[in-house]
Amino acid sequence: MKSSLPKVMHPLAGRPMVSHLLDTVSGLAPDRMVVVVGPDMEVVSKTVAPHPTVIQADRLGTGHAVLQAKSALGEFDGDVLVLYGDTPLITQATLERMLAERRGPRDPAVVVLGFKPDDPGHYGRLVVGAEGLKAIVEYRDATPDQRENPLCNSGVMAIDGNRLWSLIERVDNKNSKGEYYLTDIVALARADGATCTHVEGEPSELLGVNARSELAVAESLVQARLRLAAMDNGATLIDPSTVWFSWDTRIGRDVTIWPHVVFGPGVTVGDNVEIKGFCHFEGCTVEAGVAAGPFSRLRPGAEIGEGAHIGNFVEVKKATVEAGAKINHLAYVGDARVGAGANVGAGTITCNYDGFNKSFTDIGAGAFIGSNTSLVAPVKVGDGAVVGAGSVITKEVTPGALAVARGSQMELKGWAERFRAQQAAKKAKKD
Amino acid sequence: MKSSLPKVMHPLAGRPMVSHLLDTVSGLAPDRMVVVVGPDMEVVSKTVAPHPTVIQADRLGTGHAVLQAKSALGEFDGDVLVLYGDTPLITQATLERMLAERRGPRDPAVVVLGFKPDDPGHYGRLVVGAEGLKAIVEYRDATPDQRENPLCNSGVMAIDGNRLWSLIERVDNKNSKGEYYLTDIVALARADGATCTHVEGEPSELLGVNARSELAVAESLVQARLRLAAMDNGATLIDPSTVWFSWDTRIGRDVTIWPHVVFGPGVTVGDNVEIKGFCHFEGCTVEAGVAAGPFSRLRPGAEIGEGAHIGNFVEVKKATVEAGAKINHLAYVGDARVGAGANVGAGTITCNYDGFNKSFTDIGAGAFIGSNTSLVAPVKVGDGAVVGAGSVITKEVTPGALAVARGSQMELKGWAERFRAQQAAKKAKKD
Amino acid sequence: MKSSLPKVMHPLAGRPMVSHLLDTVSGLAPDRMVVVVGPDMEVVSKTVAPHPTVIQADRLGTGHAVLQAKSALGEFDGDVLVLYGDTPLITQATLERMLAERRGPRDPAVVVLGFKPDDPGHYGRLVVGAEGLKAIVEYRDATPDQRENPLCNSGVMAIDGNRLWSLIERVDNKNSKGEYYLTDIVALARADGATCTHVEGEPSELLGVNARSELAVAESLVQARLRLAAMDNGATLIDPSTVWFSWDTRIGRDVTIWPHVVFGPGVTVGDNVEIKGFCHFEGCTVEAGVAAGPFSRLRPGAEIGEGAHIGNFVEVKKATVEAGAKINHLAYVGDARVGAGANVGAGTITCNYDGFNKSFTDIGAGAFIGSNTSLVAPVKVGDGAVVGAGSVITKEVTPGALAVARGSQMELKGWAERFRAQQAAKKAKKD
Repeated sequence: MKSSLPKVMHPLAGRPMVSHLLDTVSGLAPDRMVVVVGPDMEVVSKTVAPHPTVIQADRLGTGHAVLQAKSALGEFDGDVLVLYGDTPLITQATLERMLAERRGPRDPAVVVLGFKPDDPGHYGRLVVGAEGLKAIVEYRDATPDQRENPLCNSGVMAIDGNRLWSLIERVDNKNSKGEYYLTDIVALARADGATCTHVEGEPSELLGVNARSELAVAESLVQARLRLAAMDNGATLIDPSTVWFSWDTRIGRDVTIWPHVVFGPGVTVGDNVEIKGFCHFEGCTVEAGVAAGPFSRLRPGAEIGEGAHIGNFVEVKKATVEAGAKINHLAYVGDARVGAGANVGAGTITCNYDGFNKSFTDIGAGAFIGSNTSLVAPVKVGDGAVVGAGSVITKEVTPGALAVARGSQMELKGWAERFRAQQAAKKAKKD
Repeated sequence: MKSSLPKVMHPLAGRPMVSHLLDTVSGLAPDRMVVVVGPDMEVVSKTVAPHPTVIQADRLGTGHAVLQAKSALGEFDGDVLVLYGDTPLITQATLERMLAERRGPRDPAVVVLGFKPDDPGHYGRLVVGAEGLKAIVEYRDATPDQRENPLCNSGVMAIDGNRLWSLIERVDNKNSKGEYYLTDIVALARADGATCTHVEGEPSELLGVNARSELAVAESLVQARLRLAAMDNGATLIDPSTVWFSWDTRIGRDVTIWPHVVFGPGVTVGDNVEIKGFCHFEGCTVEAGVAAGPFSRLRPGAEIGEGAHIGNFVEVKKATVEAGAKINHLAYVGDARVGAGANVGAGTITCNYDGFNKSFTDIGAGAFIGSNTSLVAPVKVGDGAVVGAGSVITKEVTPGALAVARGSQMELKGWAERFRAQQAAKKAKKD
Repeated sequence: MKSSLPKVMHPLAGRPMVSHLLDTVSGLAPDRMVVVVGPDMEVVSKTVAPHPTVIQADRLGTGHAVLQAKSALGEFDGDVLVLYGDTPLITQATLERMLAERRGPRDPAVVVLGFKPDDPGHYGRLVVGAEGLKAIVEYRDATPDQRENPLCNSGVMAIDGNRLWSLIERVDNKNSKGEYYLTDIVALARADGATCTHVEGEPSELLGVNARSELAVAESLVQARLRLAAMDNGATLIDPSTVWFSWDTRIGRDVTIWPHVVFGPGVTVGDNVEIKGFCHFEGCTVEAGVAAGPFSRLRPGAEIGEGAHIGNFVEVKKATVEAGAKINHLAYVGDARVGAGANVGAGTITCNYDGFNKSFTDIGAGAFIGSNTSLVAPVKVGDGAVVGAGSVITKEVTPGALAVARGSQMELKGWAERFRAQQAAKKAKKD
């Protein structure tokens, strides 16, 4: 990945790969989840908490990695799934099929997840016969015939918990790399007279992420799922390929999303909302009937009430915009309340920061803030008050009053004409 | 569709599906077009007017639907095309091929449009022999051999007008669903000794829209046509897949459109225009040689004159920007005229709204509006006048004059240093 | 192309096609490059300088075109590559393979680059046998069998310099078009007893650009290469298909680029930079640790220092923003320095232009510019000074001082209530 960030921490749809995987597994309501990490990966431990992590101090192979989890897993009765943090797209349905197979009539010791990628490349192959899964053959050890076999090993396994440690502990490292391979347990189980089987998964679920370009492919697959879910739920995405969702974006029904929209984490959008192009939302709530965009940015803590309008080049942060209020053009509204039905004119800025403290701006219901106004917080504009365009408001405005704070206009007749003549003369002299 | 909007009203390239279809048919100059709708679809009737709609009160099948149109069609001499509002991508060329076949030497009573989709699924199949179209077999009634046949029924038909009603009126509903199937007229015509034939169409033209995700696919096909047309007409689309056109967008020659541009309805762009990324235009005219973007928004009524410049974070609405004028940064210009060659500085706002009325701002030719100016409409700035930066202009400015309206600057020496010390002390106390 | 611009001047990734080709050839360190152009293409000559151009006054065929270059090529010892300005995607590796073949044991007089396009269409075909390349057959002269041959002629050749002119000068124009075909040299060389051979290239490298839609395809291929290179170098592109690079964009490691970002020419981005969606950068330097976007525009001459923040709806032009400074919202900063750690409030505008001259704004380290401030250049704000929100600053501000320049606030109690009543009465009267 050429990155200082651990691979499984690279995000998909706004959260780390490993979190996607844990979330999928959570759907199975397992007794326990244990994450095996390399050394110096505290950031992973923090992310997966409260699930425990165990550290594999030396990279001695996948079998060794599973063994590290032994004490953290403790006593249990059931099956064990072995999954990989860099294969985050696997679905709950696939895991359920594996577990059903594990608990099925053949009672296999191990169920391996196979898949048939477009390019099988150097993947290990699953050798399958009437008696089930006969062997996992590494590519370098495979015969030409075996290499023709399109069924590849994903590494993902469901293992009978009663037989797990007895198998794992017998894995040795007598191979060219000196590693303990988890795949060896298939041969060990078969030597014990047990059956092994396989289940076949979709290649798109089993994409492993080992480079930024593979991360981008995984992202596109996650996005495709999220876009389809939004459309199935009754939203129109005019060009789905240009809309980017976070894993937790919630979109209502009869919502129209125009091309080129980005949803950061924590966004909820109600029904009948129209989001025009070039919007960027994160950490915000947009209630039913809102019209937003183009070029709107909603930042964390923005709560946009029913039927409100947020227009172009408008930024709202940590502010409640009540029902029917309008902020239509070139404005910054932060640390504020905009009362129901209020109108905030073009170019209005809430001056909420003095370099040290953030202060609050309170705009009353039905107030009208003239264009290009600066509201120097803390400040309050009363219900129904009007602020004249271009004002700098530093003191409270009484409800129903007009407040104006600007310089008076003066004029120098002929000044512009003289200035132009002077500049032209200067230019002539230069040339 | 999970929508409260009738399906055929969902838009493609900015207008309802049904309008696309009617527009295509109009190209054939038909005597009459009649639209059959379900109950409670006044919105469709309104949209297709002045073409008449007839209401099919009960959904008794496609044959029944056509029969509803009988009186509205009235007396006529010629052929009848039966089309579907949710299959809006069919082309005029295909319809012409069907009509040519209908009027050709074989004189078929019915010409059915077939197609070969990638996945024939449960479509009905066209059984074709030397004598023409022998039958339309529903999937559930088809033999395994017939299901292997890739030629599917689109439902679209061209029917000899002289035989239409005699055929339609004999369709019965003796089938499992109790519906009157239009497809039955093929068997009826053949029983009369008439010939039926088929014409094959492109699957991409025959995409039916039954879900939001299919609407998105249809939209992408419409956009591909519009993008290609713009390029064939001499525009460079640097990344066509990121440019979204409305059905009526008109783009000149040697126009360059950068990635990420959206054209709402009613946009005309002249020759030699450059539109940088992240622009959103609707209802506007952009004359030759204009440079716009990135991040420009032109709203309805914006008329941008030859060679004018519209820059970033600029919104223009219902305003004439005359030749060579420049509005380059962070401005809102609405209900206004900007005279030829005038320069509107960064952060300028026309304050055109007082909560009740919209008023006009008139900026003279060659005027220079300093940055961060508020122009409180109604107001006029004379030709060649200069407005000082940061002014709030409420009174007319004489041509050639300088107008300034701002507070005078005062300074408190050492204040900032004291403020910082105080804040630091406060923070220290807290910690 | 339907364009007034010569075809090879149409840009890919921000520079003319012909420049891409010359740049690729430069990688081979050739003795000389000569560009043959049509008449009235001075713009091409200017672009390819200092490489010489020769004018082919009459379009008498490819053989004739090469002959025009004779005196410009002069005396040389080595091989000659014949390439085409409208086939700009060919890679250095392919040219190296051709030259290696030319200088290989078979000592061919001519090495022709073949390719197998998805749709061979009307391309000429390469007839290859044990003795090498036997002939190039034009499609119209090809037998049905020859037309089945998928190996097409790209026109690209590597020719033994010692035999070049002797071959070229014998090419005649005794064909239906009366043109001198370069391809004829294969037959001439074989008639001399010399060998000819071929090398096969990737179809995607040999895309010829003859229409705007083909230009768009070529652009997408160039972009794919640039995106992959950025990812391989350690940048995360969350949706690579929405990021547009210029040919010279340089992106550091652990850089995250969100969807919908455009890089114009001349951009360098350091390590650990985060660029949120909807950014447009050109001609700028962004140092390590900067956070930019969404909706940031950096124009030529913007130099953003380590760890600085550039936020939404912010334009920076010809300005140095020093380490840790913040310009977070709706601002225009041009012809300026923003000192280290300074904070420029929302809506701040540097008023740098008076219609004739650009002037400089100097903001000191640690200064705090209140929101909606106009800085009328030339002007200087001292280190650590504070400017009150909504001020118009025309005079130097002393370091550590507070400067304020705004009108004082007045209030008319009840005015807004009366205004509303009046407007309501007016409306009632109208209705």
